[in-house]
Amino acid sequence: MSNLEEKFISTERLLDGAFIHVKKDQVLSPKGECFREVVEHPGGVVIVPFLDEDNVIFIRQWRYPVGEEIIEFPAGKLEINEDPFECAKRELIEETGYKANSWESLGFVYSTPGFCSEKLYLYRAKDLEFVGTNFDEFETVESFTKQTKNIPDMIKMGKIVDAKTICAVYKMSY
Amino acid sequence: MSNLEEKFISTERLLDGAFIHVKKDQVLSPKGECFREVVEHPGGVVIVPFLDEDNVIFIRQWRYPVGEEIIEFPAGKLEINEDPFECAKRELIEETGYKANSWESLGFVYSTPGFCSEKLYLYRAKDLEFVGTNFDEFETVESFTKQTKNIPDMIKMGKIVDAKTICAVYKMSY
Repeated sequence: MSNLEEKFISTERLLDGAFIHVKKDQVLSPKGECFREVVEHPGGVVIVPFLDEDNVIFIRQWRYPVGEEIIEFPAGKLEINEDPFECAKRELIEETGYKANSWESLGFVYSTPGFCSEKLYLYRAKDLEFVGTNFDEFETVESFTKQTKNIPDMIKMGKIVDAKTICAVYKMSY
Repeated sequence: MSNLEEKFISTERLLDGAFIHVKKDQVLSPKGECFREVVEHPGGVVIVPFLDEDNVIFIRQWRYPVGEEIIEFPAGKLEINEDPFECAKRELIEETGYKANSWESLGFVYSTPGFCSEKLYLYRAKDLEFVGTNFDEFETVESFTKQTKNIPDMIKMGKIVDAKTICAVYKMSY
């Protein structure tokens, strides 16, 4: 067992918004009793869609919280009780119009574990077949294709600044 | 200008916790009027501390939101009006006890831009000099050294699952 563990004592709801949920837990840390505010997140998925050996599909999306249009791999949030793999299949079609016939897990990452429970499951998707897009209401995304050999420069030059996408780039080459 | 832009209409406070702040903005998206819930974050820093050419310092910390002890590079949140570089110098000493005499920016990443404004500035720190640690109250972190050549395996085997740390690993080798 970890000697750094913080043990749950009690919880209090701080916010139940339409999407964002926040709790405040009283915990026993190795240094004594304190509290932790936590953004509760159902988890999500990130997909690296290989159109062929040398090309992957990215999406371009306005991200209101950061006030920018950014480049990401297709991604989405788990629905209640949804299996991450089922979510990945659903989100890939919703955001790119492609169904993948070959899938491989690339593990998971925590996006910002200091204050949020978000766990993102990463997948490599291959053998793509176009079946048509199915965007969420008020979701405006544009997809485009890039050669994998150009990705390191896109990251180096700050054209890709989304953490989950950089993690997926790191892991897609295993 | 981006044709995906979402324009601000009005804002409402949803939560002002001790650490977590949430707003709900009414916005005009290309598909019509809708709202966005946003976790407001002051931004933060991530530091890759090189003890020498071949060794970096990691920290091990209990992250209550994910219920695990995880491995990360030293990192921290900006104080009000704090310059990211000043924050990086402060956090490196606080978490590892080392002052760095050589710094280099590695750009920035957004940790989870779908619902949070957190922008993380990444730095490479060299020429370290031990000056003693200065932990935050109720912060329990342990630092340790790893050879850089072992890091890819740590990520591949899921021993490093923190997104900002994987992004910094990707960028530290430029």
